[in-house]
Amino acid sequence: MLTLAQAAELVSGSLVRGDEAQTIEGMQTLAKANPHKASFLSNMKYKADLQTTQAGLVLLSAKAEIPADTSFAIIQLQDPYVGFTLLQRYFHPAPLSTGLIHDSAAIAGSANIASDVQIDAQVSIGENVSIGEGSIIGAGCVLEESVQLGKHCHVHPCVTLAKETQLGDRVIIQSGAVLGSDGFGFAWTGDSFLKIPQVGRVIIEDDVEIGANTCIDRGAIDDTVIKAGAKLDNLIQVAHGVEIGYHSVIAGQAGIAGSTVVGNGCQMGAQSGVAGHLKLVDGTIVGAKAGVIGDTKEKGMISGFPAVPHRQWLRASGMFDRLPEIWKKIRKLSDGAE
Amino acid sequence: MLTLAQAAELVSGSLVRGDEAQTIEGMQTLAKANPHKASFLSNMKYKADLQTTQAGLVLLSAKAEIPADTSFAIIQLQDPYVGFTLLQRYFHPAPLSTGLIHDSAAIAGSANIASDVQIDAQVSIGENVSIGEGSIIGAGCVLEESVQLGKHCHVHPCVTLAKETQLGDRVIIQSGAVLGSDGFGFAWTGDSFLKIPQVGRVIIEDDVEIGANTCIDRGAIDDTVIKAGAKLDNLIQVAHGVEIGYHSVIAGQAGIAGSTVVGNGCQMGAQSGVAGHLKLVDGTIVGAKAGVIGDTKEKGMISGFPAVPHRQWLRASGMFDRLPEIWKKIRKLSDGAE
Amino acid sequence: MLTLAQAAELVSGSLVRGDEAQTIEGMQTLAKANPHKASFLSNMKYKADLQTTQAGLVLLSAKAEIPADTSFAIIQLQDPYVGFTLLQRYFHPAPLSTGLIHDSAAIAGSANIASDVQIDAQVSIGENVSIGEGSIIGAGCVLEESVQLGKHCHVHPCVTLAKETQLGDRVIIQSGAVLGSDGFGFAWTGDSFLKIPQVGRVIIEDDVEIGANTCIDRGAIDDTVIKAGAKLDNLIQVAHGVEIGYHSVIAGQAGIAGSTVVGNGCQMGAQSGVAGHLKLVDGTIVGAKAGVIGDTKEKGMISGFPAVPHRQWLRASGMFDRLPEIWKKIRKLSDGAE
Repeated sequence: MLTLAQAAELVSGSLVRGDEAQTIEGMQTLAKANPHKASFLSNMKYKADLQTTQAGLVLLSAKAEIPADTSFAIIQLQDPYVGFTLLQRYFHPAPLSTGLIHDSAAIAGSANIASDVQIDAQVSIGENVSIGEGSIIGAGCVLEESVQLGKHCHVHPCVTLAKETQLGDRVIIQSGAVLGSDGFGFAWTGDSFLKIPQVGRVIIEDDVEIGANTCIDRGAIDDTVIKAGAKLDNLIQVAHGVEIGYHSVIAGQAGIAGSTVVGNGCQMGAQSGVAGHLKLVDGTIVGAKAGVIGDTKEKGMISGFPAVPHRQWLRASGMFDRLPEIWKKIRKLSDGAE
Repeated sequence: MLTLAQAAELVSGSLVRGDEAQTIEGMQTLAKANPHKASFLSNMKYKADLQTTQAGLVLLSAKAEIPADTSFAIIQLQDPYVGFTLLQRYFHPAPLSTGLIHDSAAIAGSANIASDVQIDAQVSIGENVSIGEGSIIGAGCVLEESVQLGKHCHVHPCVTLAKETQLGDRVIIQSGAVLGSDGFGFAWTGDSFLKIPQVGRVIIEDDVEIGANTCIDRGAIDDTVIKAGAKLDNLIQVAHGVEIGYHSVIAGQAGIAGSTVVGNGCQMGAQSGVAGHLKLVDGTIVGAKAGVIGDTKEKGMISGFPAVPHRQWLRASGMFDRLPEIWKKIRKLSDGAE
Repeated sequence: MLTLAQAAELVSGSLVRGDEAQTIEGMQTLAKANPHKASFLSNMKYKADLQTTQAGLVLLSAKAEIPADTSFAIIQLQDPYVGFTLLQRYFHPAPLSTGLIHDSAAIAGSANIASDVQIDAQVSIGENVSIGEGSIIGAGCVLEESVQLGKHCHVHPCVTLAKETQLGDRVIIQSGAVLGSDGFGFAWTGDSFLKIPQVGRVIIEDDVEIGANTCIDRGAIDDTVIKAGAKLDNLIQVAHGVEIGYHSVIAGQAGIAGSTVVGNGCQMGAQSGVAGHLKLVDGTIVGAKAGVIGDTKEKGMISGFPAVPHRQWLRASGMFDRLPEIWKKIRKLSDGAE
């Protein structure tokens, strides 16, 4: 429970309407909140819900008008989405390690496990694994030999960390993700494919989150590296030798082919793909479903396949449906003209 | 083994040719069937196989002509595909729980397991899990705390059901699926991303099937809900807060972004995607590889990216390859005209 | 360690510059190699690195010029990529089975395990499974009843091989892959979907590699078959009854719908898809992101959706961005002409 005064302080906002001593018990959407809940308006798609919400408190942008005919308490702040996040984190703090190791876990004798690590049932920990303090290893995970985890990592159930994979501090891996699988590399000898040993590692820096069933292949020679603060959604394919920059965000089902370097602060939309051996400069934004087949030279959004500047793609896409009409007009003009 | 009379009764059809006492031992395709097998014609692509099949019995549509120069027994019925399904289910009934719990399963003391549940090797069952009668939990599955399963569910091996996930009755989950992973939600604070706690649940209603390695994220605030009878194929991404309606069918590698509502009786083709915060009305059909970026207003098929009515997309796509020709004609006309 | 003379022999090349007795200790990229490492030039994108590399030895094509102003040793050979692969395999031989079975593995009494098989922690092996000599089963894998593996297979952690799945010899399965999940088959009865039993198997022939979290469904009636030497990357969907030919190569996140036959020596690009019940002839190459909706008749590359010959797609794609310009010109011409 939080008083509105405490809530305002927590989100660095101003209580512009309502009673400082009033309390809230949690967060909800505008549509579903009751008077004991706080809510927020960030996506303008939901603006109309302001008129009907039952929320006790609403976080609004400092630039927003106070909606007429409403009585909920209001905290104004710079970014209501950040405010919502801060309050939600207050009400739902991240799980802490219990420090317990389940009897059924199979842990190699040479593993170096900090004293307050939680290891759940049916886990397998290989030789020379090291796990830093406060980390949680969910049930059914496999950490192969020489895997290294920093402090306060949370590896959800059924994750595979293949040999030599390294995680920094506060890394979160969702269930079913595979880090350190062999990259896809074969040489054609004339009558068959010869597997190329994949001897690089997967290096995940601090504060990275990796989504469910996402695959990050180990490098063929060089390491595959995900830099600090990057966030990857579910079912993403990251091929061998890829590098993803600081705070880059990759949406679900995107794919990045081998040896490509995605810069810092980049975004990739859902189901997009980038070909191999490319460089995307810092701040590149790849639209959903786009296919990138060349380096980018400047920050900004690209879309389509082959990807072009987003506005160019938008204009051309808008014309696509007129192709039959274009064809008809041309036929008429041609027949007339010839 | 079934007599043709029994088979006709089972599929509510009429034995229009053949001996009622003749028997069949199983189903096969027209191309591979032998005289002890039954087959069926549903996809007209395989019509020519009717002339060469060795099948002892063929299920045909009541509207189909009896093929000349053939001697197999024939049952006519409304829908040969349903008939095939009914016979195949007779020959291959769904597996029943053995009621056995493997010694290696790790089951929390507070779990509430009905007496005839089958739990295979290396399973982990968390605190306060409840599993209804007749359910089967495959080897290596992880059911985190407070997961609830109804009756006669079949969870195949290596599935993760994260905390608080709920399955109705007769739900089937294929291997490697992840239900209840954290949704992909972060707020940018100006120098890093702050993880938004994902506190909704995943609710799977009765008779839903979820494919292998499909991911269904828990809601950010509201639950993610898959309504009764919906069927999801493999490697699908269902983001936080999505709702999928009754009897909707989603093909492999499709993706649905956060908070989108897919109506009842919808279909999504393989590798299609729907953006977030949208509503697809009942009966919407999304073509393969389509990308939907707006609400739909009426039932029917949409295709392409951005998706448009299917016929419109078909016409425009058919013209796409003529773009070079169009360009040439225009250049000629322009040069002539200017 | 290898002498240059040994290296030249191993790759069937000629040491055209350098001291036969000099040694190398491993492989690296041109950019990162030191004088104790060998490197190679195969992708011409990296040609400039030849001038700055610190490598002690470089593998070059027999057709390549000897680069001026360089001093590294040089082995010329037919295919530097194959040479790199051969040397890398010398320095990093594939892991051998330890022949050890972990105490925590749950192995059914009727399983038939060759004497030198390695079975890691938390594995579940069902009734009547057979595993050939020298195979390695990674931690957390589930082999359901009647699964059969040949010799020297390597199944990485957390793989599910569902009942009756068959692997030939030297098959490699990366982590999280699911083989033998139910195909996606339902018959609509008018008010609900009836599940069609999926009773075919998954048959994987010799020397196949399957990527992480890839799904290969069991056949509905016929088996799903991956023929010898085929290589599949991560997160691929192979539906029921598909057949993939010898030495075909499928890139990440591609999908193949039910009953389609992919010929021998085919290639499918990343995120491409092929509709069901089709035949791709030997040597078909499907471009990245392409969507194939018809049979192919001759070898060669197809691209786009619906897929057309690659050159045709390239030409049309090149014009796509000019659609607004085309529209403008047409409007001008039409207005003038009418």
